[in-house]
Amino acid sequence: MGELVSSIPALDPGPRLLCGPGPSNVNPEVLAKMNLSMNGHLDPDFWDVLLDLVEGLKALWRRPDGLSLCFSASGTSGMEAGFANLTQPGDKVLVIHAGFFGARIAEMARRAQTDVVELTAPLGQIVPLDHVEEALRANPDTKLVGVVHAETSTGVRYPVAELGAIVRAEAPEALLLVDAVTSLGGEEVSPTQWGIDYAYSCSQKSLGCPPGLSPFSVSPRALERIRDRKAPVSFSFDIDLLERYWIERPMTYHHTMPILQYYALYEGIRLSLEEGLERRWARHEDAGRYFQAAMRDRGYTFLSDPDHQLWELSAIDVPESVDGKEIQTRILREHGIEVGGGLGPTAPPIWRVGLMGVNANRETADRVLAAFDAVLPR
Amino acid sequence: MGELVSSIPALDPGPRLLCGPGPSNVNPEVLAKMNLSMNGHLDPDFWDVLLDLVEGLKALWRRPDGLSLCFSASGTSGMEAGFANLTQPGDKVLVIHAGFFGARIAEMARRAQTDVVELTAPLGQIVPLDHVEEALRANPDTKLVGVVHAETSTGVRYPVAELGAIVRAEAPEALLLVDAVTSLGGEEVSPTQWGIDYAYSCSQKSLGCPPGLSPFSVSPRALERIRDRKAPVSFSFDIDLLERYWIERPMTYHHTMPILQYYALYEGIRLSLEEGLERRWARHEDAGRYFQAAMRDRGYTFLSDPDHQLWELSAIDVPESVDGKEIQTRILREHGIEVGGGLGPTAPPIWRVGLMGVNANRETADRVLAAFDAVLPR
Repeated sequence: MGELVSSIPALDPGPRLLCGPGPSNVNPEVLAKMNLSMNGHLDPDFWDVLLDLVEGLKALWRRPDGLSLCFSASGTSGMEAGFANLTQPGDKVLVIHAGFFGARIAEMARRAQTDVVELTAPLGQIVPLDHVEEALRANPDTKLVGVVHAETSTGVRYPVAELGAIVRAEAPEALLLVDAVTSLGGEEVSPTQWGIDYAYSCSQKSLGCPPGLSPFSVSPRALERIRDRKAPVSFSFDIDLLERYWIERPMTYHHTMPILQYYALYEGIRLSLEEGLERRWARHEDAGRYFQAAMRDRGYTFLSDPDHQLWELSAIDVPESVDGKEIQTRILREHGIEVGGGLGPTAPPIWRVGLMGVNANRETADRVLAAFDAVLPR
Repeated sequence: MGELVSSIPALDPGPRLLCGPGPSNVNPEVLAKMNLSMNGHLDPDFWDVLLDLVEGLKALWRRPDGLSLCFSASGTSGMEAGFANLTQPGDKVLVIHAGFFGARIAEMARRAQTDVVELTAPLGQIVPLDHVEEALRANPDTKLVGVVHAETSTGVRYPVAELGAIVRAEAPEALLLVDAVTSLGGEEVSPTQWGIDYAYSCSQKSLGCPPGLSPFSVSPRALERIRDRKAPVSFSFDIDLLERYWIERPMTYHHTMPILQYYALYEGIRLSLEEGLERRWARHEDAGRYFQAAMRDRGYTFLSDPDHQLWELSAIDVPESVDGKEIQTRILREHGIEVGGGLGPTAPPIWRVGLMGVNANRETADRVLAAFDAVLPR
């Protein structure tokens, strides 16, 4: 049995340019809002803030109908919440995955006691759409299809618009669940047009807010499934209760919201709309293309199939005879820049560089490039 | 189908003295830490912060053994997580409740598909200990007993030390789950001495941090039950995975932590230890006693049985012929002070005044008293 301490050291974090897979640096304008007067979660003025935030979330998700809210939790919880609300034990679920976060969707499906069918591909690739088509034909009773839009572990984008069309054609009763953790705010995510029934994201990547929240968006038909659900659902993630709490106040109470985090998210969305979503996507694309071209010029290669390469996140192959972890540590310690390594014990040797939120620009890319040049001279 | 907005208004919250049931005003020293450089959740330096934070959490919970960590979620999720980890469907659970949050424990138990036995008492009272004793004798197969230590909806303290002794005597296999949301940091909570197997709290009340986190503490025997568990557990609340993520890094990943919230919690706990837990409890008691005596002098009465009156939270009976909601609104609008009303549709007419965290002092009590005097002249 250990001893109890009587004090802990003062907090003194070093400066960081956050160019890993997320979080990105918090936008200073967003951070400033966290210093505003904190109102209570049941304050009538905070309710007005929430109602405006709902409008902002709808605009961010480009979904005028259905429901767009936010879980007071991480994107991982947004993923879990999708299964909690949309599936019941025994439901057949098809999970399409080729990376850490896609595999986690399958794990969530198993924990939700669904009957999971998995389609996989090598890391850096996508599961071909015709394989999905075949799988749905073989499993017409599929209740839900899950996929990651922007796979943070490999830098690969899944063609969700095309997937949506296939799901509607082959399994009209199946809902489409999409992980938009790394894509929302950084590239097009269009749930209504693409046929996404449930999408979730996070606050700390392309939106430039601190981590802690999971914006989500639900289609009208997914809402029907939620309302028809018989099995008990997690209280924390109960979308029905959350809708009442956010929108039908003042007589409902669900949980004490992390108010300062919501101030931040509010400002992050306000700024995203002010910038314009299309311009924001273009800024992320420009930064990513610029960085990737410069790395290719230096002889680096990427894990991702070039046809499906993300712009907001690049998975760079660690050259042979280079110790990837050592380089990552030197970039952190000598340059104050966070870049990621491979995620999970089976990851290939890669570095993951994210240019997201306020860091999605060429100046930041140049700082990362300079750090690579310094620790790995050409 | 609604329209999508192209902008949302600027955020402009009014000033508030938060003297409701929580949150309390964030300690300015805590808030300052949220403006420090945000490191990534996988940064080696942030791992060091987490390890120090674990020591702080152990000291705060006064538990040298077992496991003391924090969920990246509200206290409500801490409650749910207890059932997710410690019970399996069909387990017999005894819930002792006489208020909104105690009733919520029973709701969580039902959602977890346990076999729930409920013991209740009128609002403002406690369930007598001999009723608990009888119930445990009648239900020797009880696997878990749940109770709220400081019932935020009524201002009542449950005698948890005495309850712990009864549970150990009558149902040695039953774990004791305690809601310490309003008590931790504001009065004594001693899980080891009292025989608490699982306790959870929040960040935004007596600790003076913003809402968003749920510190929790688990006994060694509860950890054994967690490790022997067969039914699948919620991923977000999986204590086994969280322990590995917090402590056995760097090869594990669970979720992206809300880093700025953890900076805040770290500082809140650091300051609590610096102040000294006993001194902090005494400060809360002094503020509460002072406020309650002054209100009694003015002729007000309280919902709580005086033998079980909390200090950090007072539930004041709304005098007959007074519109409680109107007074509450005027205190907010004319004095910038938040006080709470009754919680839930069946609540009696009460105001709830909290003097917690940085607000646990006589000066703040005087401001609340002055506001009551102004809107309800004697």
